[in-house]
Amino acid sequence: MKGAVLDEAMNVLAETSRPTARHLGPDAVVKSVLTALEELAAHPRARTATAAGLVVPGMVDAQTGTAVFSENLGWADVPFTELAVARTGLPVAFGHDVRVAALAESRLGAARDRHDVVFLAIGTGIGAALIVDGNLLEAGGYAGEIGHVRVAGSEPCACGGQGCLETVASAAAIARRYGERSGRATDGAAEVLARARSGDAVARQVWHEAVEYLATALAIGSSLVGPELVVVGGGLSLAGDDLLVPLARRLDELLTLQRLPSLAAAALGDRAACLGAGLLAWELA
Amino acid sequence: MKGAVLDEAMNVLAETSRPTARHLGPDAVVKSVLTALEELAAHPRARTATAAGLVVPGMVDAQTGTAVFSENLGWADVPFTELAVARTGLPVAFGHDVRVAALAESRLGAARDRHDVVFLAIGTGIGAALIVDGNLLEAGGYAGEIGHVRVAGSEPCACGGQGCLETVASAAAIARRYGERSGRATDGAAEVLARARSGDAVARQVWHEAVEYLATALAIGSSLVGPELVVVGGGLSLAGDDLLVPLARRLDELLTLQRLPSLAAAALGDRAACLGAGLLAWELA
Repeated sequence: MKGAVLDEAMNVLAETSRPTARHLGPDAVVKSVLTALEELAAHPRARTATAAGLVVPGMVDAQTGTAVFSENLGWADVPFTELAVARTGLPVAFGHDVRVAALAESRLGAARDRHDVVFLAIGTGIGAALIVDGNLLEAGGYAGEIGHVRVAGSEPCACGGQGCLETVASAAAIARRYGERSGRATDGAAEVLARARSGDAVARQVWHEAVEYLATALAIGSSLVGPELVVVGGGLSLAGDDLLVPLARRLDELLTLQRLPSLAAAALGDRAACLGAGLLAWELA
Repeated sequence: MKGAVLDEAMNVLAETSRPTARHLGPDAVVKSVLTALEELAAHPRARTATAAGLVVPGMVDAQTGTAVFSENLGWADVPFTELAVARTGLPVAFGHDVRVAALAESRLGAARDRHDVVFLAIGTGIGAALIVDGNLLEAGGYAGEIGHVRVAGSEPCACGGQGCLETVASAAAIARRYGERSGRATDGAAEVLARARSGDAVARQVWHEAVEYLATALAIGSSLVGPELVVVGGGLSLAGDDLLVPLARRLDELLTLQRLPSLAAAALGDRAACLGAGLLAWELA
């Protein structure tokens, strides 16, 4: 988890980063989120702070300030706004990590001055945030679940569904699929890509399939919400042109009457969600 | 095409309806649209009219008042607002038939007081209008092309794509697919449904497949924009429970962490787009 003290120009005055100890269970994670926030609020450079922003993954109800559900972190119905207000004494803005990362990219990063944007975050899972007509879609926290669009037949997904994009094209899925087929362990998707670059046929095939599934899902997204730009974020975006070039080519082949979006890597990297939380906080301040 | 003179309470003071003579080509259709509008504006009950609304199918740029493209009607870049203002002397609001039908359903029909709605229009083609967080999505006219989401393998579509929902689940597709498999002509999807009801195995199979494809597309829509309600309009919605009941059941099976929407038939029937045009006009008046 990451945190920062930000001035109104989004300059980072202080920063913190610590592992999310998810093996300790959801209560421990909630506790450590609140402790991290409290420590930041008590930082000397935060003495004049007038608001805090807090964002988490999973299903988020920004209006009620509740983390409704996270499969990865195991929590349900955590009243984060209430808890964070009690711990910091500050007004707290609460939101969804991917949606606020998209907000940050649209205000400060790769999607500035764009009105119709899909922000695709590819990491352990796959999520999206959709900006249409300049508005970031919420739908009560349900918008943007592109990771659970069915693109891959009957492959079972942890969500209970089948063939979900996330099960075949996330960074975690790429590493897992390579391991299953090659019998060789890897450090993750970056290593699979490195092997693909040096000619490993299994790695190339797994990478190629991931790109194909991502293109299928983005074609669907283009049909429904008509983005002019797709910003790819999350760990897999570090692959750069190895991801973006074949993805753009395939999307161009798949789309007909839909608007063909341009593709760009996220500009704010792994700080996007943290900066987005800061933007939310400054709206309250 | 349909037109009406509407008072501010959306009461119909006068009405007109005429066939769209698309075999005469796009210029003739544009001309007859404008003639119909001019006649309505000259109607005695329209004497105090202060604005007109005009909506068309296809790709529509509401902001510039242009019908960008229609595959069905064959037109491209028709400056309808300009033409209609010249013909009527009234300020003219211009929009997209499916999107304004959704607007009418949300103000006056099946989607009142709902903030997150997919309006699915199934007729000769398939289109959707998406309402998220209470806003009707435009995306420069590109939003809602659910008819061109790929759900059916390699079946060729008129758009140049493959497996588009529209090619296998529109009313026209249902009639065509039944004809191809049974060798028997029909009047349309309503007759296919009637035959399915009376035990025709081919008709039952074609209907079942259409429902399956529609459920697949709605599951995708639910993942991306999280509707609380799906309103089914267009000619096929007249099938009522024969369509809605199996569709709802299948959707319930397909969705996992997504919001499960309720399903309803359009309340305004084939007047929805006309009433929606009236709503647009009253916003200008």
